[in-house]
Amino acid sequence: MKKIINAPENYTDDMLKGIYTAHGDQVKYTDDNLRCYCKAKKTEGKVAIVTGGGTGHLPLFLGYVGEGLLDGCAVGSVFQSPSAEQIYNVTKEVEAGAGVLYLYGNYTGDTMNFDMSAEMCEMDDIETRSIVGADDVNSGEDPAVRRGVAGIFFMYKCAGAKAAEMGTLDEVLAAAQKAKDNTRTVGFALTPCIIPEVGHSNFTLGENEMAMGMGIHGEPGIWNGPVKTADELASESLGTLLKDMPVGEGEEICVLINGLGATSIEELYILSGSVRKLLDEKKIKVYRTFVGEFATSMEMAGASISICKVDGEMKDWIDRPVKTPFYTQS
Amino acid sequence: MKKIINAPENYTDDMLKGIYTAHGDQVKYTDDNLRCYCKAKKTEGKVAIVTGGGTGHLPLFLGYVGEGLLDGCAVGSVFQSPSAEQIYNVTKEVEAGAGVLYLYGNYTGDTMNFDMSAEMCEMDDIETRSIVGADDVNSGEDPAVRRGVAGIFFMYKCAGAKAAEMGTLDEVLAAAQKAKDNTRTVGFALTPCIIPEVGHSNFTLGENEMAMGMGIHGEPGIWNGPVKTADELASESLGTLLKDMPVGEGEEICVLINGLGATSIEELYILSGSVRKLLDEKKIKVYRTFVGEFATSMEMAGASISICKVDGEMKDWIDRPVKTPFYTQS
Repeated sequence: MKKIINAPENYTDDMLKGIYTAHGDQVKYTDDNLRCYCKAKKTEGKVAIVTGGGTGHLPLFLGYVGEGLLDGCAVGSVFQSPSAEQIYNVTKEVEAGAGVLYLYGNYTGDTMNFDMSAEMCEMDDIETRSIVGADDVNSGEDPAVRRGVAGIFFMYKCAGAKAAEMGTLDEVLAAAQKAKDNTRTVGFALTPCIIPEVGHSNFTLGENEMAMGMGIHGEPGIWNGPVKTADELASESLGTLLKDMPVGEGEEICVLINGLGATSIEELYILSGSVRKLLDEKKIKVYRTFVGEFATSMEMAGASISICKVDGEMKDWIDRPVKTPFYTQS
Repeated sequence: MKKIINAPENYTDDMLKGIYTAHGDQVKYTDDNLRCYCKAKKTEGKVAIVTGGGTGHLPLFLGYVGEGLLDGCAVGSVFQSPSAEQIYNVTKEVEAGAGVLYLYGNYTGDTMNFDMSAEMCEMDDIETRSIVGADDVNSGEDPAVRRGVAGIFFMYKCAGAKAAEMGTLDEVLAAAQKAKDNTRTVGFALTPCIIPEVGHSNFTLGENEMAMGMGIHGEPGIWNGPVKTADELASESLGTLLKDMPVGEGEEICVLINGLGATSIEELYILSGSVRKLLDEKKIKVYRTFVGEFATSMEMAGASISICKVDGEMKDWIDRPVKTPFYTQS
């Protein structure tokens, strides 16, 4: 295992200390617990949005806490859910009198703990709503069981914009729901990653082997086979995406080309070009393209392609300026 | 070689097509040549800043072309210098009546071609000045022979700010020079990278071996040995940096923790935390910390640490908002 770390068991906390010392003007922690990550300042009367999840996916999840996006994040260990108590403590710190939206990825442990926290909040008269990202098409036929991956970015962006314009809790939830309904993702991995405390990868891929549909924790995909070209991967992925969520000629989408960690930015743009060529052929209009690392799996090589069908309202939400230590739009 | 690409010989052009289709509102190419990369709109009367270099280092070099930063970039093939003609054509396109600053990394081929382009510009009565980034301390005792790496970010930032406030060519050069004089970098690699057209890495590192001081093209470093901890790497690197450029108690610096490509963002923050702990012990004040990928080597694993000593004027330049397809500050 080649990583720039200290003791593997301190991976998450060392990372958090690095973040707090680098960005203390923008974020803080509460409850004397590094894992309870919050925006430094709160806006009274605004709906608060809280997310959470395991470490190992930066900038997901905590990287989206900041101006115009989220208010807090409960941080689990590598690929582990945060506890209900951490979620609860983050919620108590960031709620500002207008209720709290829980917006996180569709994983069993996270759902259990967010639900438990919501019950604890109810006893404190803090109103919460919950919605999960579940954009990974290849992770299940049934949309209800799908995992949440990079497409959650569009949910954060739309809900964050609605909250920033002082929407009600139900309106913020509706914005997240609208983004969810219109977003789909397909991903593929070329190499595995290693959980620091384990010290070796929990699966292997051959020298020229890749995995289509693999999850960001290494969940098995729908096929393993020889590495395909960018054009082939774009074609297969878009086929899957558009079969699940048809987009007609002239309709508009945003495209998100996400690197899983070790894949170079150069490759992401090659893939982006391949995707765009196909969309142009299909006369699907691209409103905006995002390329970079939005949801990673530490040093896993691979990428995902998300599309988000947009109307005027969503374009406005997506274009709204945001500023976090990890992501800025102006 | 596991990469998301099409034909290896089209790597650079496929990447560029991806960038232009994704960000056509912000950048364009001139002279019917994808390799002649320019800001979409120019500001008359502003000093233009032109950079250039080989492909494989995104966001370096072209990623810094945009509002508040650079105006054009001549793009070479992977790890190759752009041609003098490409540099010249970019210069012709972006010059706006106030002269042009050439600001690029200290590599022989680049210097030769930028100098040749400067001569061609002279015949056209376009005034140019040149300055090279040469911040990589371990690449040579003599500052004049040192290579330019991630620290060029501070030169771009300061020169870009001065040009945006309509400084003269000499003032913009002086801002770049001031950033150069106050910036030093140390880097280290944990894995090599592969040039697509070659198909294999041009050196190897053992299973637990790293290279201190390795260049972003794989130039040999000052030692190869077992992978050290983040704390140890921070300590050795800071020792090298501060020996070369002493920083006294109470003086202020910016810190740039740069990932070389495959290293996870989590590790970069662990390293950032290690660096900060040492700086706090030395009572060196950190004005601002940048963490992310600023100058990469495709899928090389590793990182670099840059420090930039700042005064009031430089802090103002560094804080100024910028917006490119690859980097936004607000």
